[in-house]
Amino acid sequence: MSNDITISLQEAETLSKTLLLNNGFSQPHADAITRSVIAAQRDECHSHGLYRLIGCVQTALNGGVDTNAVPSIKDQAPSVVKVDAHKGCSLLAFELGKPLLVEKAKQNGIAALAINNSFHFSALWPEVEALSAEGLAALAMTPSHAFVAPAGGTLPLFGTNPIAFSWPRPGGTPYTFDFATSVVARGEIELHRRAGKAIPHGWAMDSEGNSTTDPVAALAGAMLPFGSYKGSALSTMVELLAGPLIGDLLGHETQAANADKTGKPFHGELIIAISPETFLGKDAESHLKHAEVLFEAIQGQGARLPSQRRFEARERSQANGVTFPKALYDELIALAAQ
Amino acid sequence: MSNDITISLQEAETLSKTLLLNNGFSQPHADAITRSVIAAQRDECHSHGLYRLIGCVQTALNGGVDTNAVPSIKDQAPSVVKVDAHKGCSLLAFELGKPLLVEKAKQNGIAALAINNSFHFSALWPEVEALSAEGLAALAMTPSHAFVAPAGGTLPLFGTNPIAFSWPRPGGTPYTFDFATSVVARGEIELHRRAGKAIPHGWAMDSEGNSTTDPVAALAGAMLPFGSYKGSALSTMVELLAGPLIGDLLGHETQAANADKTGKPFHGELIIAISPETFLGKDAESHLKHAEVLFEAIQGQGARLPSQRRFEARERSQANGVTFPKALYDELIALAAQ
Repeated sequence: MSNDITISLQEAETLSKTLLLNNGFSQPHADAITRSVIAAQRDECHSHGLYRLIGCVQTALNGGVDTNAVPSIKDQAPSVVKVDAHKGCSLLAFELGKPLLVEKAKQNGIAALAINNSFHFSALWPEVEALSAEGLAALAMTPSHAFVAPAGGTLPLFGTNPIAFSWPRPGGTPYTFDFATSVVARGEIELHRRAGKAIPHGWAMDSEGNSTTDPVAALAGAMLPFGSYKGSALSTMVELLAGPLIGDLLGHETQAANADKTGKPFHGELIIAISPETFLGKDAESHLKHAEVLFEAIQGQGARLPSQRRFEARERSQANGVTFPKALYDELIALAAQ
Repeated sequence: MSNDITISLQEAETLSKTLLLNNGFSQPHADAITRSVIAAQRDECHSHGLYRLIGCVQTALNGGVDTNAVPSIKDQAPSVVKVDAHKGCSLLAFELGKPLLVEKAKQNGIAALAINNSFHFSALWPEVEALSAEGLAALAMTPSHAFVAPAGGTLPLFGTNPIAFSWPRPGGTPYTFDFATSVVARGEIELHRRAGKAIPHGWAMDSEGNSTTDPVAALAGAMLPFGSYKGSALSTMVELLAGPLIGDLLGHETQAANADKTGKPFHGELIIAISPETFLGKDAESHLKHAEVLFEAIQGQGARLPSQRRFEARERSQANGVTFPKALYDELIALAAQ
């Protein structure tokens, strides 16, 4: 007997919205959060799927997110939109800021959206993909709680600071990547800890600054940036551009949030959108077609594009619904009934 | 007896300009190339310093760069400047496009400069640092000849595709990084070959797609991206944004240039400039100061900032002049006398 359950995307969506509304989230927040969580579940990114609703509700109960916050939009400059999330979830802030970002990017060629004072728990790829669906290339970044040591250091300072990028492909799914600037996601180390398994050298240091294979010591110590000093430099860039540039916090200043599970203090996110049509004018079509040469050359030598697995999962889920553990389903149903 | 020579920065500058003028470069090109080469020599980045003049002149003799090209500037969109280098060196194109880029970034918050049809041989950090000197954050990238296999592949496809970033620091040198998205620079493998030394596993594959420690086999095979699939994804982004987005070539399409040393075909570069003052208004000063907290925390735990070694060299050179092999000096003097 399988321990999994399969439900349609429609059912999953209804479940998510009911759960959020019954736990105090306003309709606009419930809708925006549901769109992100269902997109992740559909693409079989389980850690950012329905599972995340449990933590999201817990954070709300702990007072770590304003479930009724109404984001305010500021037209900061011809190519800059700022959205103050007012301690609400980042997802509604993104959705409300997006139309003006798209307009500015198409008008001016390149534009940025800064989100401030937000509770952030989601993957970045749904946001950059939403911009590629508008024909734009997009780059997004956010600093998260301080778990990662700078290259050459031994103490946690940077967040796992993800970077996501998407490029619009004519008539198909976009080229998209979304990765942490740490060697692995923190969840990977958690999984090893729960399974009682050693982690490989090169993932983390213990609190003495020595390389460790013990996941418990790693979680108490510091994770390592990917690619040594290069990943460390990129992580610094994320801190600067999605922190001080937009008038928000550095990753290590959000650290308290991890200790008490409240999600506080709130922090920022930066999204840059670029319009190939504005850069290229009438030649846009031929150059977007030209970009396909690169993807064909990557796949032609047997390498995969970054989101290929996710897009294959998407097709499966759209045809057959989403499959996940029955125990999670029961937990979500109980939470929705509150 | 030392095999080195020390000359003042002024002497180095005069030598560079004389050499370029006597080998057919126009005064504006000689000036722009000299500024970049001298900056690199001053910072003890020897591979991008005076040494590069030899290759630059050789490329000109081979017809691989138009030494008299006059770049043309196009105000493409409110936040986009395009400069066609007309088969000239990228450095003059950058200098001529910079004032409008700075103006647009300050006016609109974020702006981009696309350089097309250029011969590109220089480091990117002098350009992003020139923008930080104007109070801007800046990101630059360019695809280069195809030496690097995508993660999961075995054949050269990507350039070593460098990314450079700079952040303006109040009253000091900027925070700057500039690195190839390959594990190491190609020159590193060349140095091992010349010294008859093995390279470590993880740098490159032979032409059969097997990991190799033989530098000769590595140079005939494919280099690896840094950080596996993450560096590979960033390298793809560089190809797209400094290629099709700006209507220019992909890295592997510039490959012929390596075979015949002409530098042809010409390719592109993208520079993005961001104005903290426009993002932050009257709060800019306090948030730029806040960014310093991050640098202090990095250095406070004994880690170094990316360009620290370079800035220390800069101080030495400004005080004492630049020191380099006498043999190189003699070669430059001979080339300048032509």
